[in-house]
Amino acid sequence: MSRPVLRIEGGRRGSRPETLAAEEPLEIRLGDRALAVTMRTPGHDFDLAAGFLVSEGVIHQTAQLRSLRYCGGQAEAVDGSGERVNTYNVLNAVLAPGTALPEVGLERNFTTTSACGVCGKASIDAIRTEAAWSVDADPVRLDPTELTAMPDRLRAEQSVFDRTGGLHAAGLFTADGHLLCLREDVGRHNAVDKVVGWALRDDRLPLRSTVLLVSGRASFELTQKALMAGIPALAAISAPSSLAVDLAREGGLTLIGFLRGSAMNVYTGSERLV
Amino acid sequence: MSRPVLRIEGGRRGSRPETLAAEEPLEIRLGDRALAVTMRTPGHDFDLAAGFLVSEGVIHQTAQLRSLRYCGGQAEAVDGSGERVNTYNVLNAVLAPGTALPEVGLERNFTTTSACGVCGKASIDAIRTEAAWSVDADPVRLDPTELTAMPDRLRAEQSVFDRTGGLHAAGLFTADGHLLCLREDVGRHNAVDKVVGWALRDDRLPLRSTVLLVSGRASFELTQKALMAGIPALAAISAPSSLAVDLAREGGLTLIGFLRGSAMNVYTGSERLV
Repeated sequence: MSRPVLRIEGGRRGSRPETLAAEEPLEIRLGDRALAVTMRTPGHDFDLAAGFLVSEGVIHQTAQLRSLRYCGGQAEAVDGSGERVNTYNVLNAVLAPGTALPEVGLERNFTTTSACGVCGKASIDAIRTEAAWSVDADPVRLDPTELTAMPDRLRAEQSVFDRTGGLHAAGLFTADGHLLCLREDVGRHNAVDKVVGWALRDDRLPLRSTVLLVSGRASFELTQKALMAGIPALAAISAPSSLAVDLAREGGLTLIGFLRGSAMNVYTGSERLV
Repeated sequence: MSRPVLRIEGGRRGSRPETLAAEEPLEIRLGDRALAVTMRTPGHDFDLAAGFLVSEGVIHQTAQLRSLRYCGGQAEAVDGSGERVNTYNVLNAVLAPGTALPEVGLERNFTTTSACGVCGKASIDAIRTEAAWSVDADPVRLDPTELTAMPDRLRAEQSVFDRTGGLHAAGLFTADGHLLCLREDVGRHNAVDKVVGWALRDDRLPLRSTVLLVSGRASFELTQKALMAGIPALAAISAPSSLAVDLAREGGLTLIGFLRGSAMNVYTGSERLV
């Protein structure tokens, strides 16, 4: 997505086209009922919707998700014909028969944005107990040398896609440094949901013995998403928040921050470091 | 907020305490009705709540906000007495008599998080037309030399507060580079809401002839918040998204990205640059 830009550099000025990170709204529906609107970078929308449902505790197995489909006819055609065309910005998820819908207050609980995860929850405590599995006993061993190599691998892969400098990345690695899945988005939470949704659709949950690497900071919400997917280790290039550390400790997750060069800070779960 | 951390640097390991960016949930109520839960850094909560109400189009004048008050008795005391104590994580806003409440679907429309602004809106178009004023005709003239000096000023001020590397900053400047207000938060949208709420409570809206500088990227939601506050220029250290540029153009806002060193990209409203 390219836009003209006036570049000012010291005394010099020039006009040029610039590639921008795409951002558009995606409405996620569950059984034709509006669930959430998130501002996201189009692409891997099915992964995003599936991962969102995992993060919110609606599903945790592939078989629980019957179908994902774009809804047609959401916008008026620009040709003036009055026809309704597909914007690919509304996506409907249908659960398998027998999969319980979340309890009361569906709309309220699930409204979201590009960096969302605890939206409108009645209580933070409720979130902390929702996961379908525990990562506490995951025996994965983490080698600092493998960990410090991950950010370069993430950036190398990301540079193929992101010429804008405007995208967050989330990468899922095996403990020995093999990149399983990389997803990008203007919203860092969407990037993580896309990774988790990829795993759900590929029947890989829980993601035992993996490391999730995020390009920015580690918030409470990203930590929660890792726990919901059964990921035992979350690593961030930047700082974690206090609540991210508290939740990680409570959930038995290894939380690493400031993963840069040959260094890192291990906030919780350091017994997994070899 | 300090936590112990295992620091690994090459072959060396050591334990030390580290200061973390504080993150806690804040529930915002409107007339005792739950409106939103946002993950925020405690501090300037009244500014945050007031700014949130401005961003969402509920109020735009000081006189429309009658009171803001923490709700008492939200958590059980740790001394086992069974007493309910104040967590300072629930805040109730009361509007002045005669101020219209937003229309239907209050809970749904306002659920939010640390990086939220368009949560659950029925339509993006609705957001684009909500502002109480236009910035289109704001005659402010922007001098590139003044603009390029702003990031250093923001960082100098921020370093006083942020020893964690985990906080986003939003700074409101006059066109000649005077810093009017700086606010920080784990959520960049909260930092902006805190600035806007400060202005509402200080009876300064609309914020004509000002520049809002944000420490990260410029999203659709931050652009929307600037427009809702009547701010004619938004500058970001990093990249804008496609939808931020589109909304800025539509609203007559000057949008600047990659404001670093002596350089910047002007995406919209370049006629304001001298």
